[in-house]
Amino acid sequence: MGELSSVFTAVPTHKPVKKQIQFVEDKQEFSRFPTKAGRRSLSRSISQSSTDSYSSAASYTDSSDDETSPRDKTQVNSKGSSDFCVKNIKQAEFGRREIEIAEQDMSALIALRKRAQGEKPLAGAKIVGCTHITAQTAVLIETLVALGAQCRWTACNIYSTQNEVAAALSESGVAVFAWKGESEDDFWWCIDRCINTEGWQPNMILDDGGDLTHWVYKKYPNVFKKIRGIVEESVTGVHRLYQLSKAGKLCVPAMNVNDSVTKQKFDNLYCCRESILDGLKRTTDVMFGGKQVIVCGYGEVGKGCCAALKALGAIVYVTEIDPICALQACMDGFRVVKLNEVIRQVDVIITCTGNKNVVTRDQLDRMKNGSIVCNMGHSNTEIDVASLRTPELTWERVRSQVDHVIWPDGKRVILLAEGRLLNLSCSTVPTFVLSITATTQALALIELYNAPEGRYKQDVYLLPKKMVQFAACISFLKILTCTFVLV
Amino acid sequence: MGELSSVFTAVPTHKPVKKQIQFVEDKQEFSRFPTKAGRRSLSRSISQSSTDSYSSAASYTDSSDDETSPRDKTQVNSKGSSDFCVKNIKQAEFGRREIEIAEQDMSALIALRKRAQGEKPLAGAKIVGCTHITAQTAVLIETLVALGAQCRWTACNIYSTQNEVAAALSESGVAVFAWKGESEDDFWWCIDRCINTEGWQPNMILDDGGDLTHWVYKKYPNVFKKIRGIVEESVTGVHRLYQLSKAGKLCVPAMNVNDSVTKQKFDNLYCCRESILDGLKRTTDVMFGGKQVIVCGYGEVGKGCCAALKALGAIVYVTEIDPICALQACMDGFRVVKLNEVIRQVDVIITCTGNKNVVTRDQLDRMKNGSIVCNMGHSNTEIDVASLRTPELTWERVRSQVDHVIWPDGKRVILLAEGRLLNLSCSTVPTFVLSITATTQALALIELYNAPEGRYKQDVYLLPKKMVQFAACISFLKILTCTFVLV
Amino acid sequence: MGELSSVFTAVPTHKPVKKQIQFVEDKQEFSRFPTKAGRRSLSRSISQSSTDSYSSAASYTDSSDDETSPRDKTQVNSKGSSDFCVKNIKQAEFGRREIEIAEQDMSALIALRKRAQGEKPLAGAKIVGCTHITAQTAVLIETLVALGAQCRWTACNIYSTQNEVAAALSESGVAVFAWKGESEDDFWWCIDRCINTEGWQPNMILDDGGDLTHWVYKKYPNVFKKIRGIVEESVTGVHRLYQLSKAGKLCVPAMNVNDSVTKQKFDNLYCCRESILDGLKRTTDVMFGGKQVIVCGYGEVGKGCCAALKALGAIVYVTEIDPICALQACMDGFRVVKLNEVIRQVDVIITCTGNKNVVTRDQLDRMKNGSIVCNMGHSNTEIDVASLRTPELTWERVRSQVDHVIWPDGKRVILLAEGRLLNLSCSTVPTFVLSITATTQALALIELYNAPEGRYKQDVYLLPKKMVQFAACISFLKILTCTFVLV
Amino acid sequence: MGELSSVFTAVPTHKPVKKQIQFVEDKQEFSRFPTKAGRRSLSRSISQSSTDSYSSAASYTDSSDDETSPRDKTQVNSKGSSDFCVKNIKQAEFGRREIEIAEQDMSALIALRKRAQGEKPLAGAKIVGCTHITAQTAVLIETLVALGAQCRWTACNIYSTQNEVAAALSESGVAVFAWKGESEDDFWWCIDRCINTEGWQPNMILDDGGDLTHWVYKKYPNVFKKIRGIVEESVTGVHRLYQLSKAGKLCVPAMNVNDSVTKQKFDNLYCCRESILDGLKRTTDVMFGGKQVIVCGYGEVGKGCCAALKALGAIVYVTEIDPICALQACMDGFRVVKLNEVIRQVDVIITCTGNKNVVTRDQLDRMKNGSIVCNMGHSNTEIDVASLRTPELTWERVRSQVDHVIWPDGKRVILLAEGRLLNLSCSTVPTFVLSITATTQALALIELYNAPEGRYKQDVYLLPKKMVQFAACISFLKILTCTFVLV
Repeated sequence: MGELSSVFTAVPTHKPVKKQIQFVEDKQEFSRFPTKAGRRSLSRSISQSSTDSYSSAASYTDSSDDETSPRDKTQVNSKGSSDFCVKNIKQAEFGRREIEIAEQDMSALIALRKRAQGEKPLAGAKIVGCTHITAQTAVLIETLVALGAQCRWTACNIYSTQNEVAAALSESGVAVFAWKGESEDDFWWCIDRCINTEGWQPNMILDDGGDLTHWVYKKYPNVFKKIRGIVEESVTGVHRLYQLSKAGKLCVPAMNVNDSVTKQKFDNLYCCRESILDGLKRTTDVMFGGKQVIVCGYGEVGKGCCAALKALGAIVYVTEIDPICALQACMDGFRVVKLNEVIRQVDVIITCTGNKNVVTRDQLDRMKNGSIVCNMGHSNTEIDVASLRTPELTWERVRSQVDHVIWPDGKRVILLAEGRLLNLSCSTVPTFVLSITATTQALALIELYNAPEGRYKQDVYLLPKKMVQFAACISFLKILTCTFVLV
Repeated sequence: MGELSSVFTAVPTHKPVKKQIQFVEDKQEFSRFPTKAGRRSLSRSISQSSTDSYSSAASYTDSSDDETSPRDKTQVNSKGSSDFCVKNIKQAEFGRREIEIAEQDMSALIALRKRAQGEKPLAGAKIVGCTHITAQTAVLIETLVALGAQCRWTACNIYSTQNEVAAALSESGVAVFAWKGESEDDFWWCIDRCINTEGWQPNMILDDGGDLTHWVYKKYPNVFKKIRGIVEESVTGVHRLYQLSKAGKLCVPAMNVNDSVTKQKFDNLYCCRESILDGLKRTTDVMFGGKQVIVCGYGEVGKGCCAALKALGAIVYVTEIDPICALQACMDGFRVVKLNEVIRQVDVIITCTGNKNVVTRDQLDRMKNGSIVCNMGHSNTEIDVASLRTPELTWERVRSQVDHVIWPDGKRVILLAEGRLLNLSCSTVPTFVLSITATTQALALIELYNAPEGRYKQDVYLLPKKMVQFAACISFLKILTCTFVLV
Repeated sequence: MGELSSVFTAVPTHKPVKKQIQFVEDKQEFSRFPTKAGRRSLSRSISQSSTDSYSSAASYTDSSDDETSPRDKTQVNSKGSSDFCVKNIKQAEFGRREIEIAEQDMSALIALRKRAQGEKPLAGAKIVGCTHITAQTAVLIETLVALGAQCRWTACNIYSTQNEVAAALSESGVAVFAWKGESEDDFWWCIDRCINTEGWQPNMILDDGGDLTHWVYKKYPNVFKKIRGIVEESVTGVHRLYQLSKAGKLCVPAMNVNDSVTKQKFDNLYCCRESILDGLKRTTDVMFGGKQVIVCGYGEVGKGCCAALKALGAIVYVTEIDPICALQACMDGFRVVKLNEVIRQVDVIITCTGNKNVVTRDQLDRMKNGSIVCNMGHSNTEIDVASLRTPELTWERVRSQVDHVIWPDGKRVILLAEGRLLNLSCSTVPTFVLSITATTQALALIELYNAPEGRYKQDVYLLPKKMVQFAACISFLKILTCTFVLV
Repeated sequence: MGELSSVFTAVPTHKPVKKQIQFVEDKQEFSRFPTKAGRRSLSRSISQSSTDSYSSAASYTDSSDDETSPRDKTQVNSKGSSDFCVKNIKQAEFGRREIEIAEQDMSALIALRKRAQGEKPLAGAKIVGCTHITAQTAVLIETLVALGAQCRWTACNIYSTQNEVAAALSESGVAVFAWKGESEDDFWWCIDRCINTEGWQPNMILDDGGDLTHWVYKKYPNVFKKIRGIVEESVTGVHRLYQLSKAGKLCVPAMNVNDSVTKQKFDNLYCCRESILDGLKRTTDVMFGGKQVIVCGYGEVGKGCCAALKALGAIVYVTEIDPICALQACMDGFRVVKLNEVIRQVDVIITCTGNKNVVTRDQLDRMKNGSIVCNMGHSNTEIDVASLRTPELTWERVRSQVDHVIWPDGKRVILLAEGRLLNLSCSTVPTFVLSITATTQALALIELYNAPEGRYKQDVYLLPKKMVQFAACISFLKILTCTFVLV
C-alpha cells in the first residue's frame, strides 16, 4: 500500500487492552481528530452508558439478556432474513418507538423523504455506511431506503450503538452489523461483513471517521471501481481524505460535509449556546445569575457560551489572543482581560481556544474555593489536568463527571469531565442539530450519485452552495410558517 | 379546640393509603397550598428518588441496609447519645461530605455564622424545627447551633429526607427524628418525639407547612407559654397562621418569611429564568433556538421564563389578562396574543398564570404534532390534564416525567410532569437560592428571639426591612468584590 | 390664609429677574420638586428653543412677528371670538398640523374620544387647566371637549408654550391664555384670566405643578364650592396637595396621577431605556460598543439605563447602596462596585441615585481624558458640578449642552447638560409616553366628575386600579393585534 | 488611453448643473458605487449643511466671510507659506480645536503616532491624498506627517470639506487644496495643484473614490514611475482598480482596504446596530418599546438593526430570501416571514437587502396609518419611492429628512430620507469607527512603502492579516485594560 498505508498508520486507532480500562481516554486516541459534531453525536449513547445521566435515550432492559456474543447467535427477523448481526432482534419494537420519537424532531429528513420518494433519486444506489448507530441515524438510513437505496450498515464506534435501534433496523430489512461493546476484532469483522457479501457490491460509501474507507482500501481495493463517491462527516475522516488526495491516492470523488456552513454554525455557535448551560446545570446545579465567568477564546464556541451566560445574568470576561476576535468580544460588551487579572475572583472558567494548557496549574492554584473549571474546546488539553495529579492534591469524585480537587488548605476546585469536552460528556445534542447534519449527508449522497460524469474528479469537494441552501431550507419547514420555494 | 381545630381541619393533610400509591398527587393534598419555594426545595430529594434523574444529590447505598424500621432499631452516635432516630447512623460520614459541599454555595449562612458566633445571639434558644432535611437545611441547623441554639428537628415531608444528612446531624449532636419513606404514623411520631422530651422545652418554632405548629396546638398547648415566636416559610403555613390570627387564636408572634422581597424575587424571577431551561432540556433535549413558545401569564415567573427563552433564540408570545402586565410584556418586546391565535403554530406552551384550565382540551386538540406542554405555575390545574384522560387518546410514558399523549390520527403532544410544576419535578433549585431563604429564616429567628418585650404582639409579621437588607447583603459576600458595611 | 399660605410659601416659585438670565437653573427653583415626567414633558419646547436641537417640534417663523406683547393686541378667531390671548392667531393652521401629527401617536386618547363621545361623560364639566401647552396637551384638551367639557387653559411654564398650538386651540374655540416667553406678571395674569371670567365658573381643575390651585386658593376660594375635584400630575403639585390635606386645608377631593403604575413604569424604566442612548448620541456621537460605563443607582431609571447600554455592547458597572437593589443588579449580570474601584477606567459615568454629590470633585479629578459625565437622576446635584467651577479648570462649551472641562494637564472631561437631567435637556420624550399620561389624566377627570357623592372625601386619592388598567388597556390598541375587552 | 479611459468613463462622475439643484441625488451619481463607509463618513459634513441637524460638528461662522472664490484670494499662513488653497486661513484656530476633539476618540492613530514616530517608517514618503477633509482625516494626515511623510491633500467630494479643518492643516504646513462648495472645475483644479507642483513628486497615493488616481492616469502617467503604491478605501475606487488590473493597465501595486475584516464588521454590524436607533429617534422620536418592526434582509446590516431593536423592546420580524441567512435569523429568535404576511400590522419597515423594490407601492398602500418606512441598505432603490410620486398622494415635508406621504383617505406613511441610507442622512458615524478605518489606511501606506522589492506586483492586494490584526490591536488600547503585545 506504500504511502497510502502510512496515511492510515498516521492515525492509529485501536488499542483494545486500554479500551477495557479507560473508555474516554481511549476514544481520544481511537479517533485522534474527532470533529466536535462527531464526538457530540456520541453523547446520547455515552450518557446512556452512564447510569446517573438523565438521558433522553431510553434503554430496554431484558433481564434474560445473555452474555453470548452476537457473532455466536443465530437470529432471524420476522421476514425470515438473517443477514444482520445485532445484540437481540427481539428489542426491535422498543427500538422502533425510539426511531419514531426521533422522527418528530427530524422534520428535515422526513420532508426530504416525502418530496423525493416519488422520483427515488437513489434508486440503484447500494450504500455501505459506517456511523454511530442511534435513533437519529436510523432516521437517516430509512430515508435513504425510502429514496431508493439499498443499505448495509455498521458502527463507527465500539460503544455508541443503541442495540434496540440496531434491532429495529434489522427487523425492517437493513443489514446492520453492530452492537454496543464490540471488541476490536468485532469492530473490523462487522465492517467486513458489510462489504464482503455475496451478490451485492456497494457503489456509495457514507463514512464517519474513515475506518470503513480504510478497510475498503486495504482489503477490497477493487470495490472502488464501482464506487461513485464517498461522503465523510468527521474532521478525522476528512483529514485522511485530503491526505490521500494530496498523495494522489484518492481514486473516487469524495464529499466533505464537515465544513458546510450549516454544520459549522449549528455545531458550534447555536449548539454550544445551549449546551454550556445544560452541561453546567446537570453537573453542578450552579446558579448562573451573578456568577463571574471567564471564557477563554472568542471563536464560534466562545461566542455561543458568552451569549448564553450573559443572557442569564452572569458577568462574563473573555481572554483572546487574536486581536480581531478580541475586538469583537469588546464590541459585544465583554471585558477582554488576561486570565491572571481575574483568576482570583471568577466562579467559573470555560476554555474553548483550541490551544494547549490555557489554564495552568499555577492558575488553578490561585482560584477561589468552590470555583468550577471546564472545557468546551476541541481537545482535552486546554486545562492542564495532568498537573493536578500530584500527591498533595486529593481528588474526590462527587458524582459522575464531577471531581472535587482538594488543596491542602481545604480549597476545592470543581473539575468537570476531567477537562474533556463538557457538552460531549455532560449534555446531549439536540436531535434538531443532528437532523441538519443528516440531511446534509443525504443530499451529498444524492448529489454524488446523480452527478453527470465528469462533474466530480478524484478529489475532495465541499457540498455545492445550492445543496447547502436546500438543506437549510428544508430544515426550516417546521420552524417557519412561510415555506421557501425549494429549488 | 373549637375554631382552632377547624382551621387545621380546613387543611386536611394525611391520607396514608393514597400515599402509598401516588406520591405526587398526594403531596398536592398533603400540603394543599405549597409555596413554590417550599415545593421546589423538595426537588433534590424527589429527583433523587427518581432513578433516572441526573441529580446532584448523591446517595449512599449500603447493600446491608435492612428494611427494619428506624423506630425499631437502637442506634448510638460516637458520643454515646441515642437521642435521635434516623435510618442508619453509620451513613454520617457520607452525609457530612454532602453538608460540606452544600456549605460551599451557602456562603451567606457561613458568613452569618462567622459574624455572630462570638456574640451568640441565639444563646439559650431552644428551637424545634420541622423542615425538609437536606444538606442545605443541615447548614442552616448547624448555623443556629453555632449561634448558641439547641435544636431538635423533624421532617416536614415523609419522602424528602436525605438519610445520610440526618445521620450526620445526629452524629454531631442534633436530635433528628426523620427518615426517607416514613409512614403517616411515623410522621406524627417523629414530630412528637421532637417536642415531648424530658427536661427540654422549646422556646422557638421553625416550621415549614404548619404541621409542627398544628401538633403543638393540638397536643401541647402549654408549650406556647414559653414560645417566643414561630417562623414559618411556606404559603400553606402562613395561610394557616393568618387564619389563626383572624380567629384570635394565635397566641405567640409569628414571622412570615415567605413574603420577603428576597425570597419572592429569587423564588420566582431569577430561579424560574434558569429552571425553565433546565427543566425543558433534561426532559426533552429540545433545542430552544428558533422554537415558537407561548408563555401564559406575565407575572414574575412568566417574566423569568420569557427572558430566558428569548435570550436563547426562541420566538416568544405572551398571553395575559391583566392589562398592566400585558403592557409590560409589550414593552419588553413580546407579542401579546390570545392563545387561540397561535395555538396551531407554537412548539411549546408554558403556563404560569395562577389560574385554572388556561390550556383546554379544545386547544390541546389543535396543537401541532410534537409540541410540548408544561406548567411553571402554582397549581397543577393550569393545563386541563384531566380532559386528556379519555379513551380515544393513548398515553405513552416515554421516560420519567414525560408522557406522549397520542391522538387517533397519530399526533403526539408531549406533556411534562403531568402538568405539575416543571421545576419541582424536572429540575433542581440552586443551593444559592436555598441559602438566601435559609439566611432569612435564621435572621427571623434571631429577630424574634431577641426582640424587646412588646415589639411583637400575637400576630403575623413580615421580617423588618433592615433584616431583609441584611440578608441580601450577606448573600452578596461571595458575589461581590466590594463588601457592604453590614449594619 | 394662615397655614395654607405657608404651605405655598414653602415652595416659592418665581424670581423674574433671574429668569431672564438663566432659564434652566430658574426652572429648577420655579418648580422645586418637578417630577421627572413633568420636567421631561418640557423637553420638546426646550429643545425647540435651543437652535441646534434636532427636535421633532417644528416652529413656524413669521418674519413679520412683531414684539408687541400679546396682552396689548386684539385678536379675533375666525368664529368672531376674542376670548383668548396667544402670540398670533394666524399661526393656527401650522399648529393644527402639529396637533394632527401628535394625534397619530396618541391613539389611546383618540380611542377614548371615540368610545366615549357618544355618552359624553364630561357633559357639563367646566375644566380650568394649567399645563405645558404643546401639541400633545392639545390632543388631551380636544379630547376633553369631545367628551362634553368646556375648557379654559393656561401654561404652567413661561417658556414651554408652542405658540402655534395655542393659536390652533384658540381658533377651535378653547379659551387659551399662554405664549412662549411670558413674564412673571404675564404668568399670573394668564392664570387669572382663565378663572375670572364673566358667566363661567370652573367645576374641575387640571393642574401641573400646583400654581393654578394655589391661585384659586389665594384669590378665589369661593370657587372651590363648585369644584368637584383637582387632578394633579406633578410631584411638586402632589406634594403641595398632601401638605394641604395634612393641614386639614384641602377642601375638595384630589387625584394624584403622578404615582399611578403606568406613569411610573413609563416615565422611568421604559423611557430612560431609550433616552439614555438618545441623549448620549445626540450630544457626543459616542459609540456604545466596547465602552466601559458606570451607572450609579439601580432603581427603575438605573435599570433602564443599564439594560439599554448592555444591549448595545457596553460593559456596565453599577454602584448601589441598597443591598436589595444591588442584589438585583448582580442577578441581572452587572458587576456591583464602588465608584472608586473603576473611576480611572470608565468612559462614561451616569448618575441616577436621587442623592447628592454621588460624583465628587476628587473622583472627577481621577477620570480618564475624554470621559463623559452625565445625570439621569432627579436633581442636578448628583454630580458635584459646583466643585468644577474653580480657577484652575477651564470650561469650554463645545456645543449646546456639552462642556469640556479641562484640567491643567490638558485632560478633558465631557460634562453634559451641566449635570442636569440628560433626557430633559438633550433628548425628547416619545409622544406615546405622553399619551399614556394624558389618558390617565382624562380618566381621572372622568372618575372625579362622575363619582357618586361621598365616594371621594376631601383627601388625595390614587386613581382606582380599574381605571389604571383601563388606561393601560386603551394604550394598547395600537400595539396589540388582539383587543382587550374594555370594562 | 484606450481601454483605460473606458474604465473611467464607465463611472462618469460630475454633472455640475444638476449638482446645484439636488445635492444628495447628485452624490448618488457622482460616486456610483459609494461604500457604506465612504458615504457614511460624509454624514458629519452633510448633516452640518442641514440646518436642523444636531450635529456634533461645529461650524465657525464669520459674518465677514466674503463670497470670493478661494482660487482668487492670496493667503499666507503664519510661517509665510502660501502653498495651499482653502476658504479662509484665519479659521485655523477653530479648526485646530476640532482636530483636538477628534483626537480624543482616535486613540488608535495617536498610539500609532507615538509608537512609530521614533523610527519614522514613512521617512521619504511623498503622499498625495484625496479624501473627505474632516477633523478625522486631519488626524490621519498629521499622523502620516509624524511618521515622516510629506503630504499634499485635496477633497474627494465637493461638499464635504470642513473649511476650518482645511485651514488648520494649511496653517500647520500641509498643502491642502479644498473648500466646501467647489465647482466641478474647482474640483479638478485642486487635484491638479496637488500633483503638479515644482520640485515635488509623489511616491504614494491615498485615494477615496479613484478620482485622483484617474487624474494621474490621464494627465501625469509618468508620475507612476515613482509611485510605490496606491491605497484605496472606497468600493467605487476598488472596483476601478480591479478593472484596471483585469485590463492589464494597473502599473503599480494597490491596496484594497475596503474589504479588510475590521472595516467590514465596523461599518456594518457594529455601526448599524447603533445608527438605526439614532436615525429613527432623531427623525421621528418614535418609542421603540412594543413597536412591531420588519427588517428586510439579514446580512450584517440587518443583523445589527435586528439586535438593537430587539434589545429595546421592539417585536422584530425578518424577511430573507437566502435560506442560510434565514436560518440564522430564526436561530437568533426572529420570526422569518414574507413581507405581505405582516405588512398590515407593522409600525416600521427597514430595508437592508441590497436589492431593488423590496417594498413596492402595492405594499405601501397596505401599511398602517402612521407607519415609518426607511432604508439602511446600499442603494436608494430598495423602497420604490418613485411609485409614491403620483398625483393622488400628497407629500408633506414635516421636517428635514422626514416626509409624510398622505393617501386620499388621510392615511399617512412616514418616509425617511426619501428612501436613501438612513444612517448617512440622519445619523452620524462615531469617530471611533473612522479611527479604525484611518489606522488601516495608515498601515497600508506603511506596508506598501516599506515592502521589499517584489513582494507586491502590479495588482490589487488585501492588507496582510498581520497588519489587520495590528489595526484591531491598536484600536483596543483605549478600550482594554490589558495591552496586547504589538508585533
